[in-house]
Amino acid sequence: MRYLTEYKTPKFVLIHSVRYAVLLRIIQVVIFTYSTLYLLIYRKGYQIHDTTVISSVTLKAKGIGQVGMPPNKTIIMDVADYVIPPSENDAIFIMSNFIQTNQKQSICPESIRLKQAICINDDMCSNQPFIPAMNGRWTGRCLFTPEKNIVNQTGAAIKSSTGLCEYAGWCPPEDGDSSSMYVQGVPKFTIFIKTFIEFPLFGIKTKNMVDNLKPCVFDSVYNKDCPIFTIDYMLKEAEYDITERDLMLRYGGVINIKLHWNCNLDRNVKLCKPEYTFTRLDVPFREKPFSVGFNFRYTSTWKQNEEHFRTLTKAYGLRFIITVSGNAGKFNFITLTLNIGSLIGIFGIATFVSDVIVLYISKKAGVYRNYVFEKVHLKPKFDEVKDHVELQVEKNEDQLLNDASNMNT
Amino acid sequence: MRYLTEYKTPKFVLIHSVRYAVLLRIIQVVIFTYSTLYLLIYRKGYQIHDTTVISSVTLKAKGIGQVGMPPNKTIIMDVADYVIPPSENDAIFIMSNFIQTNQKQSICPESIRLKQAICINDDMCSNQPFIPAMNGRWTGRCLFTPEKNIVNQTGAAIKSSTGLCEYAGWCPPEDGDSSSMYVQGVPKFTIFIKTFIEFPLFGIKTKNMVDNLKPCVFDSVYNKDCPIFTIDYMLKEAEYDITERDLMLRYGGVINIKLHWNCNLDRNVKLCKPEYTFTRLDVPFREKPFSVGFNFRYTSTWKQNEEHFRTLTKAYGLRFIITVSGNAGKFNFITLTLNIGSLIGIFGIATFVSDVIVLYISKKAGVYRNYVFEKVHLKPKFDEVKDHVELQVEKNEDQLLNDASNMNT
Amino acid sequence: MRYLTEYKTPKFVLIHSVRYAVLLRIIQVVIFTYSTLYLLIYRKGYQIHDTTVISSVTLKAKGIGQVGMPPNKTIIMDVADYVIPPSENDAIFIMSNFIQTNQKQSICPESIRLKQAICINDDMCSNQPFIPAMNGRWTGRCLFTPEKNIVNQTGAAIKSSTGLCEYAGWCPPEDGDSSSMYVQGVPKFTIFIKTFIEFPLFGIKTKNMVDNLKPCVFDSVYNKDCPIFTIDYMLKEAEYDITERDLMLRYGGVINIKLHWNCNLDRNVKLCKPEYTFTRLDVPFREKPFSVGFNFRYTSTWKQNEEHFRTLTKAYGLRFIITVSGNAGKFNFITLTLNIGSLIGIFGIATFVSDVIVLYISKKAGVYRNYVFEKVHLKPKFDEVKDHVELQVEKNEDQLLNDASNMNT
Repeated sequence: MRYLTEYKTPKFVLIHSVRYAVLLRIIQVVIFTYSTLYLLIYRKGYQIHDTTVISSVTLKAKGIGQVGMPPNKTIIMDVADYVIPPSENDAIFIMSNFIQTNQKQSICPESIRLKQAICINDDMCSNQPFIPAMNGRWTGRCLFTPEKNIVNQTGAAIKSSTGLCEYAGWCPPEDGDSSSMYVQGVPKFTIFIKTFIEFPLFGIKTKNMVDNLKPCVFDSVYNKDCPIFTIDYMLKEAEYDITERDLMLRYGGVINIKLHWNCNLDRNVKLCKPEYTFTRLDVPFREKPFSVGFNFRYTSTWKQNEEHFRTLTKAYGLRFIITVSGNAGKFNFITLTLNIGSLIGIFGIATFVSDVIVLYISKKAGVYRNYVFEKVHLKPKFDEVKDHVELQVEKNEDQLLNDASNMNT
Repeated sequence: MRYLTEYKTPKFVLIHSVRYAVLLRIIQVVIFTYSTLYLLIYRKGYQIHDTTVISSVTLKAKGIGQVGMPPNKTIIMDVADYVIPPSENDAIFIMSNFIQTNQKQSICPESIRLKQAICINDDMCSNQPFIPAMNGRWTGRCLFTPEKNIVNQTGAAIKSSTGLCEYAGWCPPEDGDSSSMYVQGVPKFTIFIKTFIEFPLFGIKTKNMVDNLKPCVFDSVYNKDCPIFTIDYMLKEAEYDITERDLMLRYGGVINIKLHWNCNLDRNVKLCKPEYTFTRLDVPFREKPFSVGFNFRYTSTWKQNEEHFRTLTKAYGLRFIITVSGNAGKFNFITLTLNIGSLIGIFGIATFVSDVIVLYISKKAGVYRNYVFEKVHLKPKFDEVKDHVELQVEKNEDQLLNDASNMNT
Repeated sequence: MRYLTEYKTPKFVLIHSVRYAVLLRIIQVVIFTYSTLYLLIYRKGYQIHDTTVISSVTLKAKGIGQVGMPPNKTIIMDVADYVIPPSENDAIFIMSNFIQTNQKQSICPESIRLKQAICINDDMCSNQPFIPAMNGRWTGRCLFTPEKNIVNQTGAAIKSSTGLCEYAGWCPPEDGDSSSMYVQGVPKFTIFIKTFIEFPLFGIKTKNMVDNLKPCVFDSVYNKDCPIFTIDYMLKEAEYDITERDLMLRYGGVINIKLHWNCNLDRNVKLCKPEYTFTRLDVPFREKPFSVGFNFRYTSTWKQNEEHFRTLTKAYGLRFIITVSGNAGKFNFITLTLNIGSLIGIFGIATFVSDVIVLYISKKAGVYRNYVFEKVHLKPKFDEVKDHVELQVEKNEDQLLNDASNMNT
């Protein structure tokens, strides 16, 4: 029943001291000002924030490239030729260099670039363990090709009595980098980045295109709203070294296009625009990695007179990977209330600091402590209570009583 | 040493008052009830929650479309024809309209839809700056085509003495929208969404297919467990306007399929099923965007008699992007303990509110404050302590002493 | 003005008791030791943590497969043949089994595996509702094929007087699983996983390849730094059951490759390496799901003599989906300060526990409570204050006064 009859509350001491009261108020005002300005205004403590973003990215490349073919023939490459695969989710690949080989299923000598394939008799071609560089299943025969001198990797001519192991598979094997075809004009290509984002918490959708968009090219100063970027610009943003950029076009590379949306939804949603940043996501060539650049092989196949043919393409190029992130804030009463609450909590620091000053550092600290800390000193035996006075306060009372007694005498 | 001999604890004042004790208890009960019901039961405060989801989505389209070809020929389109690329990560594209052009590397006149290509002499075709709409590298020649009248964009016939600039590249150029081929029957196609998700924190895996699944079509009322949706249903969910839907089929569009799993892992995991929502992620046509719909170009290439051929397809269609999110909860003792702890913290509000009422609003507030706030008023000079009494409490004692003295006199 | 003249601070009671002071200190030391060791050292409370990761994954498959073709012919399959599509974002598909059909646009009888297509007259083939298993638009004719006996699904021969409905579309229809071609050697293929990650908060980039990487194969004991995995190893990690593994190769499956980076950025970033885990993300065959395995269809198309041809491939195989996650920590002064702050907060538990012991459990609990809780008992009518003493403390004073009075008498 005591819970319903007695009301418990902490006891406070009120010290009449202008100096410390003013000190406490100053500290409180400083903390209040700082935390209000920082937490509520600078960090927008009155807004509820959300970083969950649903996005859809559509990438459209434009531009025409040329490939010089010996003897002085030129192949024209358009979007459908250099974007492989034609449609990807959050990524696009622009082919800037390639090796093309027309093949059919048959038997033929191995690539001369494969050291293990150089043979002088059939035994060298059978019972070989599989290595990934092989172009097919070895038949076990050593083929001699008297017509042309085989040149090994170090460049020295090998005697014409040596041959190459035969394999069954797609023939002929892919030739080395020497036959690669470089696509000229890639830096001038443009990529149009269409992004649509939704902040599901707020049900707000927006896009990275202004309403009255016209054909344009992005410029960080004069044309910040244009979502069309040249490959050259993106390459330069991602890699400052011109040698590296050339190697990226030749052997491939991976570039991350980051779109970050920082949206204040209390203002017009149209004011919310993404920041674009471009960073490299592959190992620079100067670090001499195990596996350089970016490439993959693809084929187109067809059949003629019951025979299967394919065009094998080893594609080197720039792979752009898009990552979209966002942070949206909107006024919210509950968030404001909670932040004001924690702001009040920060006031505790003011009290803590002042208490330390008043009770331990100030001149009269000892006197104040006497009032703030009530000392209880129980004697071992409780019945001897008459002899000693337990409470410091009571000691004082004792003295007062003595005084009173004295007055009476 | 004082730290080992003195025990410090805050002093409390117990006010004997049924009214305020009951008030405090009522406020506490209200807060306790509300926070228990809300925090512990409604918000499942006894569960540990995790929103990290690992998911795999497999999409399978079914259905057969028709394309009417002049003169009264019909091409049948099956899955392998209209799903491009055949397999994507978390996305699927259904082609609903396309322009197909059979091309080979050669030289030919530019598209008549390209204003800049209309020429009356060779000079107009050379020294032209590159524009993205060009179909190849311009040779600098102006080709006259007496056979057919060239019609410009506004529809007016151009004199037959005008020609078109010649380009080198894939010939002939792609024709305009007039030659597009509309795939009939797309709304009747179905997409089977297979999702497997894992909540890595709990090691729980589940899927969006019931155990004894039978061929079915999703219906929000009668067949909620069926993961097979018609294109028509998804389109209608994402866009209510029939004109927009027609334009989406004709010029392409992007639809987001959201799967949200809200799982209570304290119950059988089989009861945990996803909610499907469909929203549009592109700009509606009614807003007249710079870049409408969704389309891309792809090719199939082959070689015949040493010549390269390709079929260029400009594909318009619906791109479905899947996003999977989840929120799983499971009973956890530590979470329960922590939440009970913060629940106790909320009780502070009760004390705070009651304190304000008791000490500042109630009738006897001043009296209570006298007991709760012990006033310390040190005089400027401490040795004058006899003249004044510093403590309010001591003042009272003083009076009592006076009374005592009076009694004695 | 009172706010500037009075300083308010809670009143404390100091109990002189070695026993309870020592008890409190012991509890405090225990909590301090535990929380310091756990929060600051084990959980690295001095570090700021971030789990946001930007990653790029490049996957390269290697290996040569064989397909046995009747009569004793062998087709060699290389990377460009079995990786479809050639490049994907965060995923790779390795074809391990396929059904290939050479088709052209024409009219022909339906697949004998389609029950509904078996007919005895034209009426059975017209006015049929569309079912997804149809291979094209039915023309309404029933074709009789006297040459070969049609065998229905139960294996019983159907009388040669029965026929099959004719359809217009890609002909002939795809044959059943009986004609599937199994790629031998898939388990020996290797996948090279190149990952580049960036912790955007810290601006730190790293990769899963050691600097002086050499050709290797991953081994969980001897070669933990090698990012090249055999299909066999990954399959075995994801699925222990050999029957299931065989079925996965035959009918397809989905495997999730999880890369988790746990990085302590206070040490050299090169020491930060990913953990690889492999789990299955499809429904095991033993659970007899509605839709087994993983497969999709793709085509390659070409034109010859004005006729369109295509090779339709139904590809079964292993789909690997990569998910990259990370958790990086780095020393941060603000985080350390905040954590020390909350550590101090935990000390409140020590005071709370000791208070309960001292004030409610200890022998002298009642005595201590008398000092700690100052009782205020206001009488209903305040002017009757003389008759009763409100404060417990004053009661004591009363007694003392009585003593004093007695002394005086």
